[in-house]
Amino acid sequence: MGDNFILRGDICWSTGPDTMETVRNGWIVCEEGKCAGVFTRLPEQYKGLPVTDTGGQLIVPGLTDLHLHAPQYTFRGMGTDLELLDWLENHTFPEEERYEDMSYASKAYDIFAQDLKNSPTTRACVFATVHREATEYLMEALEQTGLCTYVGKVNMDRNAPKALCEGGAAASAKETRRWLEDIRGRFSHTRPILTPRFVPACSDELMGELAKIREEWNLPVQSHLSENQSEVEWVKELMPEAEFYGDAYDRFGLFGGAGPAIMAHCVWSDDREMGRMKDRGVHIAHCPQSNMNLSSGIAPVKKYLSSGLRLGLGSDMAGGYHLSIFRAMLEAVQVSKLRWRLVDQDLAPLTLKEAFYIGTKGGGSFFGKVGSFEKGYAFDAVVMDDRGIRTARDLSVKARVERMICMSEQCTMTAKYAEGRRIC
Amino acid sequence: MGDNFILRGDICWSTGPDTMETVRNGWIVCEEGKCAGVFTRLPEQYKGLPVTDTGGQLIVPGLTDLHLHAPQYTFRGMGTDLELLDWLENHTFPEEERYEDMSYASKAYDIFAQDLKNSPTTRACVFATVHREATEYLMEALEQTGLCTYVGKVNMDRNAPKALCEGGAAASAKETRRWLEDIRGRFSHTRPILTPRFVPACSDELMGELAKIREEWNLPVQSHLSENQSEVEWVKELMPEAEFYGDAYDRFGLFGGAGPAIMAHCVWSDDREMGRMKDRGVHIAHCPQSNMNLSSGIAPVKKYLSSGLRLGLGSDMAGGYHLSIFRAMLEAVQVSKLRWRLVDQDLAPLTLKEAFYIGTKGGGSFFGKVGSFEKGYAFDAVVMDDRGIRTARDLSVKARVERMICMSEQCTMTAKYAEGRRIC
Repeated sequence: MGDNFILRGDICWSTGPDTMETVRNGWIVCEEGKCAGVFTRLPEQYKGLPVTDTGGQLIVPGLTDLHLHAPQYTFRGMGTDLELLDWLENHTFPEEERYEDMSYASKAYDIFAQDLKNSPTTRACVFATVHREATEYLMEALEQTGLCTYVGKVNMDRNAPKALCEGGAAASAKETRRWLEDIRGRFSHTRPILTPRFVPACSDELMGELAKIREEWNLPVQSHLSENQSEVEWVKELMPEAEFYGDAYDRFGLFGGAGPAIMAHCVWSDDREMGRMKDRGVHIAHCPQSNMNLSSGIAPVKKYLSSGLRLGLGSDMAGGYHLSIFRAMLEAVQVSKLRWRLVDQDLAPLTLKEAFYIGTKGGGSFFGKVGSFEKGYAFDAVVMDDRGIRTARDLSVKARVERMICMSEQCTMTAKYAEGRRIC
Repeated sequence: MGDNFILRGDICWSTGPDTMETVRNGWIVCEEGKCAGVFTRLPEQYKGLPVTDTGGQLIVPGLTDLHLHAPQYTFRGMGTDLELLDWLENHTFPEEERYEDMSYASKAYDIFAQDLKNSPTTRACVFATVHREATEYLMEALEQTGLCTYVGKVNMDRNAPKALCEGGAAASAKETRRWLEDIRGRFSHTRPILTPRFVPACSDELMGELAKIREEWNLPVQSHLSENQSEVEWVKELMPEAEFYGDAYDRFGLFGGAGPAIMAHCVWSDDREMGRMKDRGVHIAHCPQSNMNLSSGIAPVKKYLSSGLRLGLGSDMAGGYHLSIFRAMLEAVQVSKLRWRLVDQDLAPLTLKEAFYIGTKGGGSFFGKVGSFEKGYAFDAVVMDDRGIRTARDLSVKARVERMICMSEQCTMTAKYAEGRRIC
């Protein structure tokens, strides 16, 4: 837990999809790692706390990246002309095999952890590879950044190069248990998450093993769902008895309900799958850039949002090439506009306000009371200097936040806190 | 014309849509503002010239922005939830009215010119506003940057606030002539371009006047075409005798043929319009980000390219929010993938190589032999330090260029030249 302190600046946060609050030159108080509130005048009781005045910089909640692959960071922005299944075969799997080699893995994960630390993200749910040792190294590296993360050793036992298939379901389960034993009690803000890669790479036997591990260890789950049409068809062939793709996880208790679950993409989920996700409280990780880069399509995010499903944003590194969830907010809006124009004129585009909500409080909710500045929320905050976006106009705080989301790469992050800890 | 000199580094350029050349640790020679060639070993005849060794940085042709609005730079990233016609009414027109005030215009245009100078663009075709004085100021500011630009005083006489309608067609034409007289001979690399805003804002009478001015002054033309479906319908109502939108320009000789023309967007052009553009040698300015932001749609760029139409990229500031044409390259690829997946599976996505061609040699061709490093091309070059995109891997020059396009905001431009002049 961090110290007690106060930041002063132009503060903005969401309380719900349609409710964005702003306070110009306000005070935000951190007490024992939690937000004690945002104030236009500082209450008497806090007057003894140290104050950092940002000089009118923007202060917003830390961002949550609900879905990304740490080992793929090495080849972001390469193989850009392929679709999902070809891209997996030609780029992803050969690269992930390299994480058997700890000298490569440590070099790659050090860069990844450092860059994630320097991004506006404070919370992330991360895929590693099947390799236990490299996964533990990644967790060490992330722990040192001060970020709050879930990290998963990946499980796979089919439809991938032999080196990634872990010698079958039993061996995969055994190695996963060993990983969980190894890291027990070792980290204070880096937690394990069960990570079956996706149905095509996990046999029923492996899923059955993972179901047991989930129960024994009371773990959350992360996986992929209905990203690409060929993948959806493939799952139908692989598990014809499943009612829909998500049901193939649900049959093993790996689809929320008993414990939290994140399903990445959900581009092609039908109404049954959507209904089941709602029933089970599944978090959807919407990854708009990846869904463009891999020609997957455009998820009906506005529908998920208005139906009350749980939603966050994901960079899906390296399906996406950018760690910034500000950029994902803009892209979520942009692709929703194309979907509205080209696919379904009954489904209105996302607003920027909604995208800001999804990237902060929406995704943050996977971690509990995270992603807002309401009283009692974790003190996750980023301080952004937006003076690089020069203009001849005078702007409201709200307009400045809108511009920061649209042109985040032109802003400088000058400070970042997670649970009150200063990270950058 | 610049001096004679040599740059050394990792060099990449297009010679055609499918032909990207790379030379690692090569030499590129500038002679009298033109490229004398790229060499793996320096020919004897150039051995006396001064050499700048970039230490393995990437050297690529300067980028061309075929379509952007300088006055809109002030409100980029605002009003993000509107479509074209509402956005024009609520944001664009009120903002453009302010350029009557020279103290505001000079402040705004100074920022714009400075930021364009610091972008990877060396060539741009720029809309100003209807205001003569502010347009001349903008031309002065751009001239000082060293960039090569076409700048247009906008013409409008209907369907806009009174203050922007110039007091009718005759007054608009008179002011345009006065502008052309005023700037005659004043600039060495800042040229005028005739700029009817778009058909809805220009009466037949005004178009007729502009046709005369075009002939008298032998000017190129820039305008908008088939951006948004409501706009296309509106043009049908306004000029029912036109065979299609573009024909409304062509009837006045403002659609290529007699002189060069740029038409921005062409999202909804039908086969007839496409055929006419090909016949007339019209340059299409493809503006993928703007077409997302304003929910316009996705232009069939691959079809234009394979049909031999002339194509460049545009930022369409402030329909788009980013000046970088590297970013436009990535977005052109991304939206073409969505179009392929969601609209027309017979039209393959653009490759990154094609997008690089369009953003360099494609758009550059509007300026003549520009946008490549073939012998005799203008020496327009940007030097990019890509070490900010850290990775554990060793990469080819081609892979590094691919990554630079995908993550250009993580690279640093360390030098820029236009016609051999050092700009940055």
